[in-house]
Amino acid sequence: MNYRYSARLGTFSSSAVRDILKLTQGNDIISFAGGLPAEEHFPVQAVGEAFRRVLEHGNRALQYGLTEGYLPLRESICRRMAKKGVSVTPDDMLLTTGSQQAIDLLTRIYIDPGDVILVESPTYLSALQVFGSYGAKLVSVKGDEDGIDLDDLAAKLQQYKPKMLYVIPTFSNPSGQAWSLERRKGALGLCRSANTLILEDDPYGELKFGDESVTYPSLFSLDQHPQGSCVVYTSTFSKTVAPALRTGWVMGDPDLIRNMARAKQAADLHSSSLDQQTLYQLMEHFDLDGHISFVRKEYEARMRQMAGLLREQDWPGVSWREPKGGMFFWLELPEAVDSAELLKTAVSLGVAFVPGGTFFAENPKANTLRLNFTHNDAENTIIGMKRLSQAMESVLVR
Amino acid sequence: MNYRYSARLGTFSSSAVRDILKLTQGNDIISFAGGLPAEEHFPVQAVGEAFRRVLEHGNRALQYGLTEGYLPLRESICRRMAKKGVSVTPDDMLLTTGSQQAIDLLTRIYIDPGDVILVESPTYLSALQVFGSYGAKLVSVKGDEDGIDLDDLAAKLQQYKPKMLYVIPTFSNPSGQAWSLERRKGALGLCRSANTLILEDDPYGELKFGDESVTYPSLFSLDQHPQGSCVVYTSTFSKTVAPALRTGWVMGDPDLIRNMARAKQAADLHSSSLDQQTLYQLMEHFDLDGHISFVRKEYEARMRQMAGLLREQDWPGVSWREPKGGMFFWLELPEAVDSAELLKTAVSLGVAFVPGGTFFAENPKANTLRLNFTHNDAENTIIGMKRLSQAMESVLVR
Repeated sequence: MNYRYSARLGTFSSSAVRDILKLTQGNDIISFAGGLPAEEHFPVQAVGEAFRRVLEHGNRALQYGLTEGYLPLRESICRRMAKKGVSVTPDDMLLTTGSQQAIDLLTRIYIDPGDVILVESPTYLSALQVFGSYGAKLVSVKGDEDGIDLDDLAAKLQQYKPKMLYVIPTFSNPSGQAWSLERRKGALGLCRSANTLILEDDPYGELKFGDESVTYPSLFSLDQHPQGSCVVYTSTFSKTVAPALRTGWVMGDPDLIRNMARAKQAADLHSSSLDQQTLYQLMEHFDLDGHISFVRKEYEARMRQMAGLLREQDWPGVSWREPKGGMFFWLELPEAVDSAELLKTAVSLGVAFVPGGTFFAENPKANTLRLNFTHNDAENTIIGMKRLSQAMESVLVR
Repeated sequence: MNYRYSARLGTFSSSAVRDILKLTQGNDIISFAGGLPAEEHFPVQAVGEAFRRVLEHGNRALQYGLTEGYLPLRESICRRMAKKGVSVTPDDMLLTTGSQQAIDLLTRIYIDPGDVILVESPTYLSALQVFGSYGAKLVSVKGDEDGIDLDDLAAKLQQYKPKMLYVIPTFSNPSGQAWSLERRKGALGLCRSANTLILEDDPYGELKFGDESVTYPSLFSLDQHPQGSCVVYTSTFSKTVAPALRTGWVMGDPDLIRNMARAKQAADLHSSSLDQQTLYQLMEHFDLDGHISFVRKEYEARMRQMAGLLREQDWPGVSWREPKGGMFFWLELPEAVDSAELLKTAVSLGVAFVPGGTFFAENPKANTLRLNFTHNDAENTIIGMKRLSQAMESVLVR
C-alpha cells in the first residue's frame, strides 16, 4: 500500500550520533563519538544483588506499576536531593525512560507549534530533535566559557517572548562548560521575570572534576520551592549507575508534573518498574556516593590523558578548553575545515567523533567537533588519538 | 510563575481505569477494574535466572543499546512468529515500552490533526487517548459477536477516507470478543482497497480458551509479506510473562518501522535493554509455551468461575457473553442504569470495575461495564461478586 505519513515525520531527523554509533558497532573503529560511560566501571555486582532483592519481595514486583513511577525510588531520590539542600517530595517528581523522555513529555504538554524555545549554542542535539518534532521555533542564545550570555538572553526574552529556555548549565553536552554562579542566578531572574519556563537538563552534574569545594548548584535548587518554580529539572541514572536501566527523573511544580504524568500514561503507561525497583534496592544497599566518587576520579584521569594528547598534537588553529566535568571535549577547528568531511577520513582511518554542526539550532559551525573521553581506556585513547591526528593533518595541511 | 500549557494538554484526559487503580491501591477493595494478570503465576524464578544470565555476559549488558531494541530478542520473537507461520525479520520489528508505546509512535508518524481513525465500538480506552492527543478525528464502526461489521466498515471507509483503522480482533479489550475468519479477511480486503492502514493490537491473542484446534490468525499473518503490508501489528510480554518488564514489539513494513524508530529515538532513545536482554534469556532457557499454556488454563478456570457466578445472579435486563479468551467480561445493563453511578455504590461496598462509557469514541453507552476475571483468586472473586451483586440490586430495583 501507499503509506501516508504525517507531516510531523519530516521533523524526525535521525540523530547523527546514533547513526555513527550504528556504523561503528562491531567494527575495529575507536569511537570518541557516543556519550558512553565506561563499561568496566558499571556496578554489575551491585545491580545483580539489587535485582535479587527485588525478586525476594515476591511476585508483586512483576505487576503493573504507577505511571508516576515506583514510590520508594522517588522517596530515595528525594532523600538524596535533600542532602544537597534541594527540598522535593515524590509528588514533585516523575520517573521517566531516561531524561530523554522527560524532555519529550514536557515539550508535549507545554509547546504548541510556532512557540519559541531558546537554546544554548551549541546544545544537546536530541533535545533539538524533540523540540523540532513539536513544531517549536528554535532561537539560539550566545554563550561563553562562563555560561549563557545574560545580555543576549535578556534581549531574546524580550524579542521572542519564548515559552521555554532549554539549558545544560553543568558540564554541557557538547561543550563541557559549566556556568558560573552569577550566570545561573542571572538567567533564573531574567526567566522568572519573563514568565519563561527553564528546562534544566542535568545528566552530568555528578561527574565533577578538580577541587571538591567548588560546587555548581542547579538552577532548580537556586529557585524557590517546586510549587510555582520556573525551573523543571531532569537527571538520570544513566551516567552514575548504568544506561541499560533507562531510568531518569524530572522534578518541578506538582501540577506540571501531574500533567506530564497524564501525557506519559498515553505514551507508555509507565517505564520499567523492574528497573526502578532495582535502582531503589541499589540506592538502599550500595554506596552510590562512593561509586560516583570513584567514577569521577577515573573520568578525570581519562580527561587529563586526552587533554595531554591534545596538547601534544598542538594542531594549528585548533582550540579547546579543559572541561570541568562531564564527558566531552569540544574542539573548534580552522574555519575552512568541515568536520563532517573530516569524519569520513577519520572513519577510514579507524576513529570516529561527532561533527559539531548538528549541535546548533541556528548557524551551525561546521568547523567544530565533539570528542568523548569517558568510554575508551588509556590504550585505545592513545591509538584513537593517533588516528585522529593522521586524519586531522590531512585537512590542516590543505 | 504562570504556566502556559500547550493546547494539546487538554486532550490528555487521565485514564479512568488508572484513576480507579490508584484509588483502590492498598485499600480493602476487590478490584475487577484493572487489566491485571494474576501475580501468583508470574515466572519469578525464571525471570531471576534469566537476569543472572544477562549479567554473566559481562558489563556490556548495562551499556546503551539500539533504539530498535536488543537484536537477539528481536530474532527470538521472529523465530516464535515463524512457528505460527508468520515470516518476519528483525528489520520489520521495533521493541517498545509495552504495546502502548507502539500505538503512540505509529500515531506520531502517521496521523496529522484532523485525520480520521476508525475504531471499534467499544475499544481500548488508552488508544482513544493517544489518538485524541494527536488531534485525530475518531469514527466508530459497528460490530457484533463475530467482529467488525463489514458493511458499516465499507461505508465508513468510503465516507471518511480514514488513514487508519485501529482494532483488537482477538479477545478484545473491553468486549472479550474474537472476530471470525470471514470478518478478518473481509476487513483486510476492504482496508487494502481503501489504502487504509490497520493497526492490529494483539495483547491477548495467546490467552485463548476452549478447543485447542480453533485458531484466530492475526490480520497481519493473513496479509502479504511485511513489505508493503497494510497491517501494523503490536503485541507485548505483559500478559504472557509480566508487565513490570514493559516490553512490547511492533511489526510491519520495514520502512514504516524505521520511521517509528526515528520517532522513538526522540521519545526515549530506547526502552530498557536490561529487560529486553532478560526476556531474551528467558525465551532461550524457559518453556514459555508451556508457561502460557498453564496460564491459559488458569485464566479459563477463572473465567468459568465468574461466568458461573454471573449466571447465578441472573440480574434482570443484564446481558453478557462468555469470552473466548483474554481477560474481560463485558456487561450491558438496562438502559436506565449509569454504570459510573453504580461504581460509586460498588466502591462504597468494597468492589470496583470500569464503567463502560469510557471505551467509546462516540455515543458512549453509559449502561455498560467491564469486569476483569484474571487478577483475583477464586475466594476474592466470590466475595467481590457478592459485593457487586449488592450494588447491582440497589440500581436494578429502582
